[in-house]
Amino acid sequence: MKSRAAVAFGPNEPLKIVEIDVEEPKENEVLVKILYTSVCHTDAFTLSGEDPEGIFPAVLGHEGAGVVVSVGKGVTSVKSGDHVIPLYTPECGKCEFCLSGKTNLCSAVRETQGKGLMPDGTTRFSYKGEPIYHYMGTSTFSEYTVVNEINLVKVDEDAPLDKVCLFGCGVTTGLGAVKHTAKVEEDATTAVFGLGAIGLAVIQGLKKANAKRIIAVDLNPDKWELAKQMGATDFVNPADYDRPIQEVIVEMTNGGVDYSFECIGNVEVMKSALEACHKGWGESIIIGVAGAGKEIHTRPFQLVTGRVWRGSAFGGVKGRTELPGMVQDFMDGEIDLDSFITHHLPFKDINEAFDLLHKGESIRTILTYEE
Amino acid sequence: MKSRAAVAFGPNEPLKIVEIDVEEPKENEVLVKILYTSVCHTDAFTLSGEDPEGIFPAVLGHEGAGVVVSVGKGVTSVKSGDHVIPLYTPECGKCEFCLSGKTNLCSAVRETQGKGLMPDGTTRFSYKGEPIYHYMGTSTFSEYTVVNEINLVKVDEDAPLDKVCLFGCGVTTGLGAVKHTAKVEEDATTAVFGLGAIGLAVIQGLKKANAKRIIAVDLNPDKWELAKQMGATDFVNPADYDRPIQEVIVEMTNGGVDYSFECIGNVEVMKSALEACHKGWGESIIIGVAGAGKEIHTRPFQLVTGRVWRGSAFGGVKGRTELPGMVQDFMDGEIDLDSFITHHLPFKDINEAFDLLHKGESIRTILTYEE
Repeated sequence: MKSRAAVAFGPNEPLKIVEIDVEEPKENEVLVKILYTSVCHTDAFTLSGEDPEGIFPAVLGHEGAGVVVSVGKGVTSVKSGDHVIPLYTPECGKCEFCLSGKTNLCSAVRETQGKGLMPDGTTRFSYKGEPIYHYMGTSTFSEYTVVNEINLVKVDEDAPLDKVCLFGCGVTTGLGAVKHTAKVEEDATTAVFGLGAIGLAVIQGLKKANAKRIIAVDLNPDKWELAKQMGATDFVNPADYDRPIQEVIVEMTNGGVDYSFECIGNVEVMKSALEACHKGWGESIIIGVAGAGKEIHTRPFQLVTGRVWRGSAFGGVKGRTELPGMVQDFMDGEIDLDSFITHHLPFKDINEAFDLLHKGESIRTILTYEE
Repeated sequence: MKSRAAVAFGPNEPLKIVEIDVEEPKENEVLVKILYTSVCHTDAFTLSGEDPEGIFPAVLGHEGAGVVVSVGKGVTSVKSGDHVIPLYTPECGKCEFCLSGKTNLCSAVRETQGKGLMPDGTTRFSYKGEPIYHYMGTSTFSEYTVVNEINLVKVDEDAPLDKVCLFGCGVTTGLGAVKHTAKVEEDATTAVFGLGAIGLAVIQGLKKANAKRIIAVDLNPDKWELAKQMGATDFVNPADYDRPIQEVIVEMTNGGVDYSFECIGNVEVMKSALEACHKGWGESIIIGVAGAGKEIHTRPFQLVTGRVWRGSAFGGVKGRTELPGMVQDFMDGEIDLDSFITHHLPFKDINEAFDLLHKGESIRTILTYEE
């Protein structure tokens, strides 16, 4: 079938909206009509060419929601008409990782997903007869996309897809990093580096966890208002100081924070976030995705004296098991998604959504396929 | 009073055995007659001049045992004649750290201890009228030493001091890192980098924890026999491979180890130890002390995909609370100390003990003051 798609033909080029060909879903695959998608920094990162695993031409996009059109052989958990959110972190429920009880990372389709392929080693997308690669197992920048059954979660039909699509990445990642990765306890002192969607979701998660102090750190003072609204108690702008920001935070917290979160992808900020932690027990969680070849670094003394360095992918959330509950929490008013949505645009203006993100003017732009 | 002491007059010079003057203990201080001391790599590290916090002239030594001679005003937990082990990690029981329930680090005397001073800002040691600095709050290379009450634990009088002196550092650190820092569970797959006293103690701890696989890693094949005796199941010599040792370990464990321990102090080995961990849940514990200015480094992706980087000081053990129990475990045959003791020498031959350590010929040399 034919599908409108915003194709990344090459690194650092604007996406081009073209009509691609989409094949029928094969065994254990599902054809989904995407209704809404947003743009995340990871899409921008891959498009920039900085992502060493970036493959072109590809259909990017990993934060979306839609409706099942048809299913391939063997698919049992969703059927035509179901409302679904694609998951870049699949959950097969059977692999060593899924069964470990220790991680949300699933290895079932890791190898092919990382290469932009479906598990049989081919793509379902093509343009003028040439294959177009998948991306993160989701490719929500095509109106019709094919994903594995294990990369899909069914959600409540009453949930507004133009909002819950945000559970596809940023919001889930931020809330999950607080709950699953850091396991933040009541009255904790915390710091959040970077006030994009993930940082703001971390702040929202910290407020839900009843953290006593939530220090929001960003170079852009325009982000402060929304951070405060989400629950931040202090704002620190590193540009206001001529010494390392970790020193400032250690001082203002009388020893450092119990938990810090890096939500940018900058290895120097990762170092600051770790060193802003309290000696003896402070834990720092890396969420941001760093550029190719970049390395974190610090003196081992920082760890020997009790700090812990962790990371979080998709917030440690098992998508198929946990997303329905998170959607319910949103419906019950316990999770705020509206505040993340700063812009709405028709799908054809997707490059403008990237621009808004780059300029720091948007948190999330919801792109609508139907106009 | 007069005391025989091995004084470090300057970096990278052999210790000189001289007669120093030792003052009476002041308030909350205790005068201890050291009967036995061993030499640890940390003493050698400071003596080398690499330790940025090293101060000279000083009385080094932090792994010893002795008998209380007299106590200063306010001391209640020990009295003359008590058998004691000096603790470089004190335990005041009252500071924010001691009360946190999250760490064994105590802040009570941190500032002065790090400067080689007693809490009143002076030293109790002098030579020809010039002050000699303390070291790690213990200074066991003087037959008579003055330590804070909180840097001292009383132990069972029936315990042989020429053996339990090892609880002053290496053995406690290794056993504790497994139990308190890593909290290794039954059937875990593990790797230990560096087979000195700490690495061997880690292996012993892993065996006690019923780890399924204990991979011992060292460049010196002579260490293998003792490691096997302690419980190691595999030996890997990085010199036998022309690729990063973490790749070898990930392959031989089908994905990486659940826990790894760096017991050397080499930041490149710390990186290998982290990267030898299993994606999703592997945890690496840094125990070794790195040289001045050295930094650990790795791609943040290693953490984002679920590995955890920690450190351990004195094995996370609270000395005054826990050492008596560990001494009891030794008396009950549950902890093997004898295997660590490869040499005995009279105190006057202390520089030979350093040589044996440097050459990798000894694990621990017990130095005896009485000849």
